[in-house]
Amino acid sequence: MTEIAQLKHLQPFFAMEILAMAKSLEAEGREICHLEVGEPGAAPAPEVIAAVQQSAATDPQRYTPAKGELSLRQKLSEYYNAQHNAKVNPDNILITNGSSAGFVLAFLSGFEKGSKIAVTRPGYPAYLNIISSLGFEPVEIEIHAANGWRLDADDIRAANKANPFDGLLLASPANPTGAMIEREDLARILNACDDLGVRFISDEIYHSLSHGLPETSALELSDNALIINSFSKYYCMTGWRLGWLVLPDDMVRQTEMLAQNMFISAPSLSQVAGTVALDCRDYYDSQKSKYVRNGMLLVEALSEMGFKDARMSDGAFYAYVGIEGLAEDSVAFCKALLQEAGVAATPGVDFDRVNGQKFVRFSYAGDHDVLVQAIEKMAGFLSRPLSV
Amino acid sequence: MTEIAQLKHLQPFFAMEILAMAKSLEAEGREICHLEVGEPGAAPAPEVIAAVQQSAATDPQRYTPAKGELSLRQKLSEYYNAQHNAKVNPDNILITNGSSAGFVLAFLSGFEKGSKIAVTRPGYPAYLNIISSLGFEPVEIEIHAANGWRLDADDIRAANKANPFDGLLLASPANPTGAMIEREDLARILNACDDLGVRFISDEIYHSLSHGLPETSALELSDNALIINSFSKYYCMTGWRLGWLVLPDDMVRQTEMLAQNMFISAPSLSQVAGTVALDCRDYYDSQKSKYVRNGMLLVEALSEMGFKDARMSDGAFYAYVGIEGLAEDSVAFCKALLQEAGVAATPGVDFDRVNGQKFVRFSYAGDHDVLVQAIEKMAGFLSRPLSV
Repeated sequence: MTEIAQLKHLQPFFAMEILAMAKSLEAEGREICHLEVGEPGAAPAPEVIAAVQQSAATDPQRYTPAKGELSLRQKLSEYYNAQHNAKVNPDNILITNGSSAGFVLAFLSGFEKGSKIAVTRPGYPAYLNIISSLGFEPVEIEIHAANGWRLDADDIRAANKANPFDGLLLASPANPTGAMIEREDLARILNACDDLGVRFISDEIYHSLSHGLPETSALELSDNALIINSFSKYYCMTGWRLGWLVLPDDMVRQTEMLAQNMFISAPSLSQVAGTVALDCRDYYDSQKSKYVRNGMLLVEALSEMGFKDARMSDGAFYAYVGIEGLAEDSVAFCKALLQEAGVAATPGVDFDRVNGQKFVRFSYAGDHDVLVQAIEKMAGFLSRPLSV
Repeated sequence: MTEIAQLKHLQPFFAMEILAMAKSLEAEGREICHLEVGEPGAAPAPEVIAAVQQSAATDPQRYTPAKGELSLRQKLSEYYNAQHNAKVNPDNILITNGSSAGFVLAFLSGFEKGSKIAVTRPGYPAYLNIISSLGFEPVEIEIHAANGWRLDADDIRAANKANPFDGLLLASPANPTGAMIEREDLARILNACDDLGVRFISDEIYHSLSHGLPETSALELSDNALIINSFSKYYCMTGWRLGWLVLPDDMVRQTEMLAQNMFISAPSLSQVAGTVALDCRDYYDSQKSKYVRNGMLLVEALSEMGFKDARMSDGAFYAYVGIEGLAEDSVAFCKALLQEAGVAATPGVDFDRVNGQKFVRFSYAGDHDVLVQAIEKMAGFLSRPLSV
């Protein structure tokens, strides 16, 4: 393998590795319960599929403007008005190839090369890998199960004092923990960032998936925050690769130019799908209610099986639980669980390179019947002596 | 605008700017002939649309493996066997969100930060912008109309002596000139790169669009070259955002890890479309024959109107012509042509920041009737005294 300095800290995305192993087992005829990838089991709303079929037949599917179709950006502006009572100019919205491309654009357009960008540990694994591969330096702020995995303004001030950083990227609800930051706490965090001269990037891709707490978008509280969102999770559109940025005024033009050159535009058919999806919230809310039912079943079962910190999260569709007392190493545990019980889960090392060997993430966004089956298989697996 | 060092040299993509201006005029009710964007007028083959409609209705459109669906990678391997008599392991193929994401992955995975990457001037404008935005340094090698806009091995040796570079990115057929490198010359270029320790990146997105010369893929001649290709041009799939890389062995694993983190996967529905498109070459060849007819009509008309170097190119679907004697500044010329005649074309400054004010690029990939109309409008425009 060629050694490239900026890829020195690059790690594989273990969830994708486990997915690949699971697919190999399936190719051999094994039946696998997929709890490893954060992916809704449901399809997009029927209206979305109908619009896509229509558009594929009649529209040429050409490059769209780099910022995305105006009709989609106007719908998103209406969404912020309806859901957050916030005024967002469609000009400040830029449609991306999933939130992934959104991160790339946000970092390159928002920070000088070599800048330090803080994230939580545990957190979404691609954060660290994208930050370091693009030539920025990640700073990790540890969060703890005892605090419900929440980050607060004091944590940020203390971390910035120890190792000053230029940006803070924070997800609420978070992956892998589902933890949410409530409005007052978010306001304190935004104040701390303003005081410290830290640009705040709000990863809101699990928005609309709160299990009860009200959701606050950072744009309700700040004109400086950069918002990242996506159609993948709530709108059940993972494979469509569609997301968006809401940019502060000072970043709009340069991010558009960067997007023109780096990505040209997001997929046109996915933009048709997203435009219709925003009007189908009844359908998607009914999907969310299934995740809540799944989640309650799963965390109770995990708790009974002896996993630590198994409790219903604030939002999203993950259970991030400790394996202490069950196994020592989450990678070996997940491989054995997959091989022996046919249940795919993601080892905590994906989300935490320091303590992740003690944790596993289960996604409960899939079908209820598959989850029931997975719980039975796991219970059987854990009732036998573990080899790991 | 926030000043970010790595974006210091970032320029807007003028083709997209002209497109935006053209759309504004259309919104006012004006009829515009689009010759500015390199975009086929035809839709994908009917079989492609049928497969997409079927898949949208019945398949969940989830994340695919980061390298892309195996079925598509196997089809591409068969394509190399059939078109180039070359053996390509599907494991070395990585499906991307258009060639755009392919460039990002190729640069980050192939070169240390700060490395110098050479490109031709004129050339595809996003090359310079992506290279510099990602923290690499572009080196421009000038090519000339007098040599048919072709680069040769001696040019490369001379340029590398003057300013040593680590990589060379070359398109054949090229944008904006349509120039092709023939097999013997490509072999000499690859030898020169091997001698000089330069990694060769072959941009083959205009492959299958030669106007007669046989096409050679760099992978026929080298195991070290990195190949970038796309479904946008020959397969009429610009808005689908689907491309691919063929990676040398030493880059496969790290590029896959980078793709997992930076992009997760390419759009699933586009992968369905691409898989079917590869079997529809009769349909796409019939589209290409229309471009040839358009091209011959256009270059003859441009020549009669007084544009310089108006001759049929080796491949692709562009006429890159001089405006000397007609106007001084291609940006002002293109704006006037759009405003006054309703014909959108791309100023040469997109492709050449030094001499581009003297050139304009016309795309002839669109509908024949539109081209005929555009020629009439241009002739009328040029028969009046020019204000630029």
